[in-house]
Amino acid sequence: MLRSHTCGQLRAAHIGQTVRLSGWVNRVRNHGGLAFVDLRDRYGLTQVVLDPQAAPAAFAGGSDLAAEWVVAVEGLVRARPEGQTNVDMATGEVEVLVQSLTVLNPSQVPPFEVAREINVDDSQRLRYRYLDLRRTRMRRNLLLRHQITAFVRAFLNDEDFVEVETPILMKATPEGARDFLVPSRVHPGKFYALPQSPQQLKQLLMVAGLDRYYQIARCFRDEDLRADRELEFTQVDMELSFVEAPDIMALNERLFLDLVKSVTPELRIRQEPFPHISFHEAMERYGSDKPDMRFGLELTDLAPALAATAFRVFASTLADGGRVKAVAAPQTFTRREIDELEALMKELGAAGLAWLTREAGGESRGSVAKALTAEEQGAIFELTGAQPGHTVFIVAGHAALVAKCLGRLRQDLARRLNLIPEGELCFAWLVEPPLFEWNEDQGRWNSVHHPFTAPDPRDLALLDSDPGQVRAMAYDVICNGYELGGGSIRIHDRAIQQRVFALLGLSAEQTESQFGHLLRAFDFGAPPHGGIAWGLDRTVAILAGESNIREVIAFPKSLSAVDLLTGAPSSVPIEDVHILGLRLAASDPPDASAALPATG
Amino acid sequence: MLRSHTCGQLRAAHIGQTVRLSGWVNRVRNHGGLAFVDLRDRYGLTQVVLDPQAAPAAFAGGSDLAAEWVVAVEGLVRARPEGQTNVDMATGEVEVLVQSLTVLNPSQVPPFEVAREINVDDSQRLRYRYLDLRRTRMRRNLLLRHQITAFVRAFLNDEDFVEVETPILMKATPEGARDFLVPSRVHPGKFYALPQSPQQLKQLLMVAGLDRYYQIARCFRDEDLRADRELEFTQVDMELSFVEAPDIMALNERLFLDLVKSVTPELRIRQEPFPHISFHEAMERYGSDKPDMRFGLELTDLAPALAATAFRVFASTLADGGRVKAVAAPQTFTRREIDELEALMKELGAAGLAWLTREAGGESRGSVAKALTAEEQGAIFELTGAQPGHTVFIVAGHAALVAKCLGRLRQDLARRLNLIPEGELCFAWLVEPPLFEWNEDQGRWNSVHHPFTAPDPRDLALLDSDPGQVRAMAYDVICNGYELGGGSIRIHDRAIQQRVFALLGLSAEQTESQFGHLLRAFDFGAPPHGGIAWGLDRTVAILAGESNIREVIAFPKSLSAVDLLTGAPSSVPIEDVHILGLRLAASDPPDASAALPATG
Repeated sequence: MLRSHTCGQLRAAHIGQTVRLSGWVNRVRNHGGLAFVDLRDRYGLTQVVLDPQAAPAAFAGGSDLAAEWVVAVEGLVRARPEGQTNVDMATGEVEVLVQSLTVLNPSQVPPFEVAREINVDDSQRLRYRYLDLRRTRMRRNLLLRHQITAFVRAFLNDEDFVEVETPILMKATPEGARDFLVPSRVHPGKFYALPQSPQQLKQLLMVAGLDRYYQIARCFRDEDLRADRELEFTQVDMELSFVEAPDIMALNERLFLDLVKSVTPELRIRQEPFPHISFHEAMERYGSDKPDMRFGLELTDLAPALAATAFRVFASTLADGGRVKAVAAPQTFTRREIDELEALMKELGAAGLAWLTREAGGESRGSVAKALTAEEQGAIFELTGAQPGHTVFIVAGHAALVAKCLGRLRQDLARRLNLIPEGELCFAWLVEPPLFEWNEDQGRWNSVHHPFTAPDPRDLALLDSDPGQVRAMAYDVICNGYELGGGSIRIHDRAIQQRVFALLGLSAEQTESQFGHLLRAFDFGAPPHGGIAWGLDRTVAILAGESNIREVIAFPKSLSAVDLLTGAPSSVPIEDVHILGLRLAASDPPDASAALPATG
Repeated sequence: MLRSHTCGQLRAAHIGQTVRLSGWVNRVRNHGGLAFVDLRDRYGLTQVVLDPQAAPAAFAGGSDLAAEWVVAVEGLVRARPEGQTNVDMATGEVEVLVQSLTVLNPSQVPPFEVAREINVDDSQRLRYRYLDLRRTRMRRNLLLRHQITAFVRAFLNDEDFVEVETPILMKATPEGARDFLVPSRVHPGKFYALPQSPQQLKQLLMVAGLDRYYQIARCFRDEDLRADRELEFTQVDMELSFVEAPDIMALNERLFLDLVKSVTPELRIRQEPFPHISFHEAMERYGSDKPDMRFGLELTDLAPALAATAFRVFASTLADGGRVKAVAAPQTFTRREIDELEALMKELGAAGLAWLTREAGGESRGSVAKALTAEEQGAIFELTGAQPGHTVFIVAGHAALVAKCLGRLRQDLARRLNLIPEGELCFAWLVEPPLFEWNEDQGRWNSVHHPFTAPDPRDLALLDSDPGQVRAMAYDVICNGYELGGGSIRIHDRAIQQRVFALLGLSAEQTESQFGHLLRAFDFGAPPHGGIAWGLDRTVAILAGESNIREVIAFPKSLSAVDLLTGAPSSVPIEDVHILGLRLAASDPPDASAALPATG
């Protein structure tokens, strides 16, 4: 070892010992003829002192030292002089008087400072990720991720789960989001796919009798990137046999609670046990299937107030089966603020944003103050609970649009009104989602979760008559406006699974070619089973207080799907493409195909 | 939960309790009007009794039961009748008298029996992997893998390692074995690659100051499959800063010892601490860089006995700088056995296999008994320690060929002579391998490990003058004839790294495009660091007593790189290929490229 102690280890008890430390120069100060160097490693900072009297060679050797140089020092631990103890530093009672110093590696001037918490351009951070990861914020995030991962594993190991690694080179699935394809060299023209999740394999592990499976699984989705999406992401994936939905929810709730109390005890959990809210209720009250329930600003249905309204916009919306709903905010807004909010609503597809501010003495003002009668306005204030000085925002349109707009509006208002409490976690279970949703574009049913989710047995009869009304035996765990994960009881009966595939528009041939292996497995003793998968990246981000999951991933891709550090993806020698039985559409000359057998 | 207890849980203490069990029918026996069902789950077997008197409905409902049906039963735990206790079964003191029975899922007759340990064709096992995994052997192997993984993680967590997930979508590397390529949709014509190891990223994590990193990392290599190779494999990957080679070896040795003592205490460890053997010595004494040291049969150099030989074959080999070496076996062999051994040697490239059996009274017989003088034969018997009744096998040729042949011969002889002790682990460290080996085909140096391995500082001067003599700061951990893993101290100095790249024949441009990011990182304070990676699949296989790593992988590919369960790799819709900027060489019409922008 090139050290006897880490830079976070020395205490008063070490005074008088000769030690060896290695680390990075965090800061150098010259003071009274002495040089003071803060030496840094993952574990902390230690002040080392270069004294030209005590060790002239070390002092001379340290004259070039600058930030991020890597050095080893040997020296004597001593108490800091009277009054110079640093209580903000774990090693702040002591310093090391250097006897010898070795420069292990010098450093060029880094493109940004490591030692100070400054804002740095994101692309610079990714390009020099090894410097970015040296900074306190990222080191803390990666360590927290490690702790969370270790906690989850220990918890599940204790609960008799078996960790099983499932393959990354999988079968391509035509369903849902896009697969990454991996060309096969041995079978040219055929492809493996990177898994979007180990869903089918974990179900097969249940058929295999493994009883309780988990994996902290890497998954892949070739979608355009957003702040909460990476090409590859990690999920805590589990599956259990002989269970019912409440068993899985209870186990995971206990896991989340124990996790937070263990790794981030400074965070408050708003409600225990987690509240349950149905999909229908969440959409009605919050306009979202992953509502942030740390604040109110709930949606109000204005239909009762508008039954006989003469205002054409609202009347015709209601007549057409649409919704007129509102969010009331406890303050007034400037014209400019209202314009901003309306612009946001229009961006989301709303025709406009109506508003009414209740004033003292029964008066009101706003965009619909003239269009609505005093009775209607009074009823609106009563339904929404708006007091004098409060403002009611109203959106009209079809149900999904109103939900989307007002769901977003309440988030925006909560930020503007500073209603979101810091350091609080509001977990909840979203239950009873529909099994199917109608896909307008393709004129067919889609699975809301995935095609393996079991229908609620109470709704089995509706499978043929009214698929849109069938509830799924599914549950999402949500927190602070994010969906952390979702799960369900799965179908384990071949006949029901086939009915679902048929409802999704799959022919018998498609079913066989895509899912034949799963149906076959159901023929040989599939137990009742279910599971859940939740996003590790998002969970870590929430506990770390980060809004972007890239802050908790060591080497993320940029928004243009590029690894700015290494330059992936990159061009490869054309022979490497040909050997896979492929040609580049853009640059490969058409006659290259003739030469293929020779080059391959 | 569809059970109150597992099938492995009930003991005499539960007698009198009403319980609910769920599981698979392992076996049904009818006896004296009663039906006895062994119910199985991951945790064990429990005998349940269907009695037409006690519960006529349950008895009737169980009349169809057959192997692999999934059932739930409710009933009373009672002591087995006098004399019917089964001491081989953890639950053998009790049985459950069934009050009600529910068939959760029937099963077709499975393609092979789950309950009995019978030999089943490998392709059937892979095709119905979910049935194969229900069998005792595979369940035991997967559980052992889980225990090993959990142990390793706990050990490394305790040692201050941080688990970090590195990306699977990486930059393609032109070095070494073949990359799997992943076409980018966002950047058509460019490719990510699946990592052959996280080598460069773990080094960058050291530059990032993470100090101690580990990951149980999935790695990929597009090579033709053998019994010890899969397309994807798992390695225990670690890297440490401010360490020297002995630190890394000591930590891993402790890890292996603690692991074996914890998860497979029934296995004997032949030697503690692990012996160290140099690459040179291993090749000389065992003809292998991963010798099985559980038995002797060491190689003997016969040159001292043949200095003046008139036997042309040996004389000319020695004159040309070749070697004449032998392995002595403590018995005689039939003509047929010797023919088999000679055939094996010829398969490996030897011109032939010479042999001499020492007989009583100074006599000898064998293929070179006439060609060598009595003095030469006497010297050979003395050098090899051959006693009367022993046989000496001799191979002549260039050094590498002799090592390969006799290394293999000693393995073969050990099996024939039954010299390999069961249940014994012979770990060792192989040290001081060369840094480079000469690639005859390409007329240039190759890295023996990888280009990031540090040269021994004592040999730095040889880098320019005699690269083949430079020793690497590398170490392999070997066990029972397998290389479990290897590691090294890495280069952390830009100038030395560039010299190594240049020696490997990389131009400045190639170095920059392939490794520029790593060299750049070395400019900003790279600490001295090193690490190791070892194969989890092989480690589990050795501890499980399996010779094929497929027996410890849940869903392996077949030898033809196919997933027999799901059918991957498979054809995909041609639009999915076009959108990646690719065409299929074999079937895509040449003019398809013209239509690309439209279809993409």
